[in-house]
Amino acid sequence: MKNFNYYAPTQVVFGRDTEGQVGQLVKKYGGTKVLLHFGGQSAIKSGLLDTVEKSLQAEGIEYVKLGGVKPNPRLSLVRQGIEVCKAEGVDFILAVGGGSVIDSSKAISSGRFFEGDVWDLYLHKTHATKYLPIGCVLTIPAAGSEMSDGSVITNDEVDGWLKKDYCVNEFRCKFAIMNPVLTYTLPAWQTACGITDMMMHTMERYFSKDDDMEITDAIAEALLRTCMSEGHKVLENPTDYASRAQIMWAGSLAHNDLTGCGTSGDWATHCLEHELSGMFDVSHGAGLAAVWGSWARYTREENMPRFARFARNVMGCDTTGMTDLEAAEAGIQAMEAFFRSIGMPTNIHDLIGKEISDAEIEDMADKCSTGDTQTIGGLKVLKMADMINIYKMAR
Amino acid sequence: MKNFNYYAPTQVVFGRDTEGQVGQLVKKYGGTKVLLHFGGQSAIKSGLLDTVEKSLQAEGIEYVKLGGVKPNPRLSLVRQGIEVCKAEGVDFILAVGGGSVIDSSKAISSGRFFEGDVWDLYLHKTHATKYLPIGCVLTIPAAGSEMSDGSVITNDEVDGWLKKDYCVNEFRCKFAIMNPVLTYTLPAWQTACGITDMMMHTMERYFSKDDDMEITDAIAEALLRTCMSEGHKVLENPTDYASRAQIMWAGSLAHNDLTGCGTSGDWATHCLEHELSGMFDVSHGAGLAAVWGSWARYTREENMPRFARFARNVMGCDTTGMTDLEAAEAGIQAMEAFFRSIGMPTNIHDLIGKEISDAEIEDMADKCSTGDTQTIGGLKVLKMADMINIYKMAR
Repeated sequence: MKNFNYYAPTQVVFGRDTEGQVGQLVKKYGGTKVLLHFGGQSAIKSGLLDTVEKSLQAEGIEYVKLGGVKPNPRLSLVRQGIEVCKAEGVDFILAVGGGSVIDSSKAISSGRFFEGDVWDLYLHKTHATKYLPIGCVLTIPAAGSEMSDGSVITNDEVDGWLKKDYCVNEFRCKFAIMNPVLTYTLPAWQTACGITDMMMHTMERYFSKDDDMEITDAIAEALLRTCMSEGHKVLENPTDYASRAQIMWAGSLAHNDLTGCGTSGDWATHCLEHELSGMFDVSHGAGLAAVWGSWARYTREENMPRFARFARNVMGCDTTGMTDLEAAEAGIQAMEAFFRSIGMPTNIHDLIGKEISDAEIEDMADKCSTGDTQTIGGLKVLKMADMINIYKMAR
Repeated sequence: MKNFNYYAPTQVVFGRDTEGQVGQLVKKYGGTKVLLHFGGQSAIKSGLLDTVEKSLQAEGIEYVKLGGVKPNPRLSLVRQGIEVCKAEGVDFILAVGGGSVIDSSKAISSGRFFEGDVWDLYLHKTHATKYLPIGCVLTIPAAGSEMSDGSVITNDEVDGWLKKDYCVNEFRCKFAIMNPVLTYTLPAWQTACGITDMMMHTMERYFSKDDDMEITDAIAEALLRTCMSEGHKVLENPTDYASRAQIMWAGSLAHNDLTGCGTSGDWATHCLEHELSGMFDVSHGAGLAAVWGSWARYTREENMPRFARFARNVMGCDTTGMTDLEAAEAGIQAMEAFFRSIGMPTNIHDLIGKEISDAEIEDMADKCSTGDTQTIGGLKVLKMADMINIYKMAR
């Protein structure tokens, strides 16, 4: 068990009708002038934004609205948000939406007091020292951004776009309101992408070279099994409160570091996917499902017993009499079958709807490795040539 | 899944040699003058206290020492600690030890600025509004006090003693340093009491009338299985780092509310035990083991399928062809067998080494029900007469 730091200070307020507490919570955490940040029309149409505004008004909290966050949130809107915060004297950001809205809020938070270009933070050139506090009302269980320290932003100001992350503890939300009822109207596709994303957050931590963190493994396996069984239930009955609730809470636990305590993790699948969604603007969850199987087959020899354990304890495979390699393959196939059962692609063609070219693959690998200067992955360290191999296996 | 609040802001610093960071952590959380609170000689003899003092000195942090905390921590020492804090201008309490030292620190924290009698807080007569911040270096994994909001204090100023708890979010430690190596020297008995305590913290939340929190159940079951398998390993090999680490982290996760998200919980076994250790000054963990089986048999009809699930998913019983009642009984027997396998008593006679009298039982039930005016338990609401029945079943 590796040494670790675990820090998950977000106050989670979970359950029916909890969004009405948002004004009190903003007040509790010191907000007096709020940037109310959200995505498209759904928060308006559903009446959620109205409820949030009334709750803020009831506490005498001023606010300024900024909508328009898109999936794979864009740097250009972040810059706009920073200017609004400066001009209006905002002292708290309230994100109403999913991971994209929260990630955009985090970027704005980091840029508010930063003297330089906020994108330099995402290029890891420097650190900000002062941040605006953030709270959220979550509407899409998937990214886990409501409890995580990370934010992923897409730079839409450069050719071919560029997707980068920045992680600091100041990005952890002060509070996260989660009402499963708010997720009833999520389309099946988005629900499935979210389930894939949270499972991958757990699996990125699970697949490592380490083998001495039984408690973390056992919790990770419990989460993954729950995501699969409850995920099927939710897709069959989108207004099943109990199943929506399990999935929603699983999304937070999958990415608040609980499933990474004592492990070193991998994260290569996420890196490979960021290039896919950067280039083709596809859903993050779907992109993960499209490359995971190929990544797994390419890297599994680094810790075959762990893939065999995954097959047994997570996928429920009967591996009696199998070699570790056979068990690992059975587990990977079962995982891919699950992905397909919830409508996810398991190759790039099914993801982007066309054949990907060698040039596009090389371009992605070039970006992912920053011109063959950086590696990714913890289970197996991957260079640019490895990335090309995996993309080609997944094509 | 019931609505819930989850708030676990403690920064956990886990692993080898982490105690050397204590000075930096106290500084990070604003401490300049520390009450260094500890138990007996073991922290001195092991050299831990010396390491802690050097780390504080290296950061230029002043401190005043107060040792002498006993298991079932006493109100009289709490009062002494409060006076020391007032006299010395202490602004941070550092607990070095197990749950008793942390609970004593919490009581001192609540009494520092409180105008009235600190015991009134534990009698739930009133609330304190200002608290001293607390950090800890944990040496005994058991009580989970390092991440919990609770403190249990024994009033040694009254006849027959009285054990009461007080719970507020301000009691959550700012940081908790956990180095599994520091637990190598724990005697087998204390290790086993600790394992029982953390398992019971999980089981008190698990056994409820609710049946719609699959994710919480799955995590609880993972924790319980880990406690049993790693517990046996630790007792066989007390210096097995990996197993000590699982047990140590399990102790925190068992009581930071993770295993209670969405459930209503029970807690009757804890209430029944508090009277036992209040009257006979026995170890809390052993007291829990002594009464749990009787509590389970007395209350199981309130949710038999849950006891049957426990038998299958936690105790690994093959319940094929059994009725729920038979499965429940098999699970309870397996749990009692585990308790005995780690040296725990499963009845009051084995706990206190003598026959308990009817008068003593009636006295405990009277205290536990505050003179038949208060009930305990969530799975089955227990009145004074029920408490007497359970104590008699467990005698």
